Amino acid sequence: DWRTRGRAHIVRYVILKWTLCLLVGVLAGAIGFFNNLAIENIAGFKFLHTTDLVVANKYLMAFGVFACSNFVLLMFAVAITSCIAPAAAGSGIPEVRAYLNGVDAPDIFSLRAIVVKIFGCIAAVSSSLHVGKAGPMVHVGACVAALFGHERLHKNHLTGKWLKYLKNDRDRRDLVTCGAGAGVAAAFRSPVGGVLFALESLSSWWRSSLLWRAFFTTAAVAIVLRALIEVCVSGKCGLFGKGGLIMFDVTSTTIAYQLLDLPVVILLGVMGGILGSFYNFLMQKVLGIYNQINEKGICYRLLLAGTISIFTSCLLFGLPWLASCQPCPDATQQGCQNLGKTRNLRNFQCSPNYYNDLASLFFSTNDDSIRNLYSSGTHELFDQFSIILSFVTSYFLGIISYGVVAPAGLFVPVILTGAIYGRFVGMLMGSRSSLDHGLYAVLGSASFLGGTMRMTVSVCVIILELTNNLLLLPLVMLVLLISKTVADLFNGNIYDLILKLKGLPYLDGHAEPYMRQLTVSDVVMGPLQFFNGVEKVGNIVHVLKTTGHHGFPVIDETPFCSTPVLFGLVLRSHLLVLLKKKDFLPTPILTSVDISKEYSSDDFAKISTGKSDRIEDIILSEEQMEMYIDLHPFTNTSPFTVVDTMSLAKALILFREVGLRHLLIVPKTSCRSPVVGILTRHDFMPEHILGLHPFLKKSRWK
Amino acid sequence: DWRTRGRAHIVRYVILKWTLCLLVGVLAGAIGFFNNLAIENIAGFKFLHTTDLVVANKYLMAFGVFACSNFVLLMFAVAITSCIAPAAAGSGIPEVRAYLNGVDAPDIFSLRAIVVKIFGCIAAVSSSLHVGKAGPMVHVGACVAALFGHERLHKNHLTGKWLKYLKNDRDRRDLVTCGAGAGVAAAFRSPVGGVLFALESLSSWWRSSLLWRAFFTTAAVAIVLRALIEVCVSGKCGLFGKGGLIMFDVTSTTIAYQLLDLPVVILLGVMGGILGSFYNFLMQKVLGIYNQINEKGICYRLLLAGTISIFTSCLLFGLPWLASCQPCPDATQQGCQNLGKTRNLRNFQCSPNYYNDLASLFFSTNDDSIRNLYSSGTHELFDQFSIILSFVTSYFLGIISYGVVAPAGLFVPVILTGAIYGRFVGMLMGSRSSLDHGLYAVLGSASFLGGTMRMTVSVCVIILELTNNLLLLPLVMLVLLISKTVADLFNGNIYDLILKLKGLPYLDGHAEPYMRQLTVSDVVMGPLQFFNGVEKVGNIVHVLKTTGHHGFPVIDETPFCSTPVLFGLVLRSHLLVLLKKKDFLPTPILTSVDISKEYSSDDFAKISTGKSDRIEDIILSEEQMEMYIDLHPFTNTSPFTVVDTMSLAKALILFREVGLRHLLIVPKTSCRSPVVGILTRHDFMPEHILGLHPFLKKSRWK
Repeated sequence: DWRTRGRAHIVRYVILKWTLCLLVGVLAGAIGFFNNLAIENIAGFKFLHTTDLVVANKYLMAFGVFACSNFVLLMFAVAITSCIAPAAAGSGIPEVRAYLNGVDAPDIFSLRAIVVKIFGCIAAVSSSLHVGKAGPMVHVGACVAALFGHERLHKNHLTGKWLKYLKNDRDRRDLVTCGAGAGVAAAFRSPVGGVLFALESLSSWWRSSLLWRAFFTTAAVAIVLRALIEVCVSGKCGLFGKGGLIMFDVTSTTIAYQLLDLPVVILLGVMGGILGSFYNFLMQKVLGIYNQINEKGICYRLLLAGTISIFTSCLLFGLPWLASCQPCPDATQQGCQNLGKTRNLRNFQCSPNYYNDLASLFFSTNDDSIRNLYSSGTHELFDQFSIILSFVTSYFLGIISYGVVAPAGLFVPVILTGAIYGRFVGMLMGSRSSLDHGLYAVLGSASFLGGTMRMTVSVCVIILELTNNLLLLPLVMLVLLISKTVADLFNGNIYDLILKLKGLPYLDGHAEPYMRQLTVSDVVMGPLQFFNGVEKVGNIVHVLKTTGHHGFPVIDETPFCSTPVLFGLVLRSHLLVLLKKKDFLPTPILTSVDISKEYSSDDFAKISTGKSDRIEDIILSEEQMEMYIDLHPFTNTSPFTVVDTMSLAKALILFREVGLRHLLIVPKTSCRSPVVGILTRHDFMPEHILGLHPFLKKSRWK
Repeated sequence: DWRTRGRAHIVRYVILKWTLCLLVGVLAGAIGFFNNLAIENIAGFKFLHTTDLVVANKYLMAFGVFACSNFVLLMFAVAITSCIAPAAAGSGIPEVRAYLNGVDAPDIFSLRAIVVKIFGCIAAVSSSLHVGKAGPMVHVGACVAALFGHERLHKNHLTGKWLKYLKNDRDRRDLVTCGAGAGVAAAFRSPVGGVLFALESLSSWWRSSLLWRAFFTTAAVAIVLRALIEVCVSGKCGLFGKGGLIMFDVTSTTIAYQLLDLPVVILLGVMGGILGSFYNFLMQKVLGIYNQINEKGICYRLLLAGTISIFTSCLLFGLPWLASCQPCPDATQQGCQNLGKTRNLRNFQCSPNYYNDLASLFFSTNDDSIRNLYSSGTHELFDQFSIILSFVTSYFLGIISYGVVAPAGLFVPVILTGAIYGRFVGMLMGSRSSLDHGLYAVLGSASFLGGTMRMTVSVCVIILELTNNLLLLPLVMLVLLISKTVADLFNGNIYDLILKLKGLPYLDGHAEPYMRQLTVSDVVMGPLQFFNGVEKVGNIVHVLKTTGHHGFPVIDETPFCSTPVLFGLVLRSHLLVLLKKKDFLPTPILTSVDISKEYSSDDFAKISTGKSDRIEDIILSEEQMEMYIDLHPFTNTSPFTVVDTMSLAKALILFREVGLRHLLIVPKTSCRSPVVGILTRHDFMPEHILGLHPFLKKSRWK
């Protein structure tokens, strides 16, 4: 712990922490901007080219160009994800959440993951696949942060002298939290929303000082984004550049709502809840099927992705033909395309001065579609039939697209789908409601977000920051609360479902009811492996090879003590360091010299690359195997312990709140062995407990 | 724990929790509205009357009316506070913070406190004392919430059947957190800011589900406020009614800032940090002196308050004479007073079409002054001399006013003072800066808030919600971060300083450096009081009478066990219940029947009125004193324990994160007694530790 070091060290440590936050913020902001820029340009160029062909009546060729470019882009994304970093598939939010809960999923924070995530995301989103770019940005932000704690990076590029202060788990976790918040901030240009997102749905432990640091990071993101957008306003960024820090500005709308509008808003909330939970349910099923396909190999993955890409292309290109042409609302001589930044209508196959409403939704980037839907004073913009068709398409495309092995987020499809049905409800209300249809779309987005993601405060703030209209706040809050309540009746939030599918042992903060009926000794299984204070090398090697445990109790027995006494807990990683050093004792005696002096704290620092030593790599001679190690200097002498009669629920609170990895169980009476077991994260998993005590399943509700 | 109960119970419990949150929100919103209405009307009427007299050139009489009404109002506030509920003095935020940390300050959540707080606050703020109404609103919100968990209220008015589910500490603490958030939301009309305030600066433990509930509560506040303001728009609320949900709207200002403005913004941050920490320093000194005066009795309190009131009246009435009259900016025939809701200028002694800038700041409610300062496009509104004078006045009046024994907040004076120097910096910059002077005032407020309160995210969101301009976000964040960083170099935040002055044992989340050098056994003092499993009544009574401890270890000795074994921990309150029941055993034997059946859980439910039983009230005969109690059924058999070699820092983490009140220390080797001590909150206080180990003081930074 740094607090024991001298003043100079502390100052250096604090400066380092803040500098890293600043760096993470700046990098996340820059990457987020680059992502947006690339997507807008690639997708924009694609749409521009295709539209030109359509206008020139070369429909088949237009479809060919559209479908081919989509196919190639998605194949590229799937290929690099599968070959280089499979951990980069999906949104990455569940993995970041699991990491912050204490579960190290393999390879999620590698340099390869970040590169694949950035370019895969650009390709996947540009390919008109119905996925978002926000989720991957969260992962990228977290990745950037984690890389600064990365062992290899230190050795090669940066002065290890400074960064070695950040080698403990807590600092790394804090930095990753800030990074994830920065990712959200960069994706939605929403600094406060980013902090709250990290707090509400990612972090498992939270301190007030961390709040401040996360806030600093997202402030850096906001400033970087603003500066970069400033550069783009002059038009140097190709097709990108419209829209400032507020993505979907609805400030222009005056908000006037009466008591009569409340029932409709409540209806929207209920709809969002039902549709959202059903979305989660379908998503879970589809992901289960996809996982089976994807596991079969890269060919199957490509095949699956290709099928979805072609299907999507057909839908997006085909459906607009069903819509009728409509005259441009305030037709100027420029046609419909340049109606200001809030509306971006496509004339598709229609003649100039007419537009195709379905094409305006489907045949443009998701951001433009959302902008169209949020635009105010445009009650006649969409046809009812078009809205229903687009809702169904968007809803189901969202479900089937996420499972592709490519970086893909859930946020944007959910926002879009919600906006569509929100607008539909607004159209049904017609003139009976005083609310603008654009606001209905915003509320619809909020309700669908609440129904799927089940976040409240962060989604509320993100929506406010996206739309820059604080007067909407009470309605957004109401809609979110209702939709979350309704959806919670049916199933869990989408990230929990994905985590469960991935089999990551996420530890919830609250105890299940049946845990109160069990004591800690009920869930501990199998023979306990422990070491003596002075242990034979061969014995250690044998135990390490035959078990996968990460911590072992050390017990002092005769001749050092009259009765067996628990001395402490020794970690597997520390034992491996000791074995590698090969500094053994010929006889089982206590060492008189302080042997721990021979090791620096760096030897025991956790290696974060995931490439830790394995017991198989350490080769010892027969002679060495017969020697001894004095474990006393390397043992944590005050591990957290609980008595064996403590209820599992109470132990869980200790385990979770203090953030433990091992919890020793000591007997109430000292008659037996001084330790009766060791609790780890897996012992608290419902699957494990219910497997041991199947009768509890029935009595779940007592 | 409710999770073990049946499904019907759970549903009822959940509904109850949410209903209470709704009620708290509605009540807090209504009270906040009522407060505002009353203050605006009383103060408005006072100013109207005084101004009329000034205009009629009856200066002496005007001063008389002004000073007298101020004096009477403040005397009323001080008198009711001193006589009825002394706990209602001050802002109440430190006390709420301490309560949420686990310290029960006496009487802070009584019905008397809430009534005094509301009316005292109205009187004190209306009396032109330089204090705010936000802090008291936080306390009122928390109070409302706590009253729902109030024992007496249950018995008399509400069906105890429902509310008995909320008798545990955690539910009560959660509800108080929501209530405090609702208070902030009501004070600033800032629902998201309220949640964040509760999270950042009040709460010590936080769960995601609580975030949601707090959000629900503040949403209720926002909706109630909006509905009530709607009613007032038609002008039925007397002088109140201008301004909607956004208090200080600056939306009309277009925000354009360049890189060149950054140094000025940074300067503002540094200024805010220095001025803020100096403010805290002076406040601490002044409060120390005031406390000595106030302790001497009610006459001294009234005398102090009266002196301050007359001094304030003299300053507010006298200083505007120093300012010169200025012509109204866009003089209409109506004079200067009706320049729209963002500006409210006073002509004071000047002729019509002229206004007095100092009077516009001093001679109106703080809200109007802030609105004047925040108004945009008004670069010529204030004279430099006036601004400097008003800054000095506001800064020092704020310091000397808070210590009065009346409900008084710190927020509004701090916002006002910050706005003044922000505007001054803007005026100094003149045309070199593209930022509007109104925005400088907003940034000044932010920097001073950051410098005194040291909050970041919540202040940022509150300012955004007050001013409704999201584009300001990056600048506000920057200013807050800088001012907090600078101020933290000098001293702690103002609430911590007040807590320390009050002597409340607030437990920080992080360990001090010297705590790592101590083991838990180093800080435990004195002989350990413990009970045997079957204990003599007389012995229990003696121990309870001679010590003030709240928990005692129970140790099984011979004849029930061969060696002494720690059985568990019994609470003082439970012992008192047992003694009251007088169900004793004639001989020291283990009870065979399950005696705990004779007691319902209600008997042991914590009484929240603060009027718990005392040992002195229980009268036992000589004969009964010789009898025995079997403590086994009433003992917590699995208390949290640590070994005596654990470092104090590690024990603190366990103590704080799990939220304990007692932590048992067990010896490493079982040779000695099974318990060596018991740790409570007081053992972690720096004063206690440094008192035991004075040498640590010097080596604090080693």
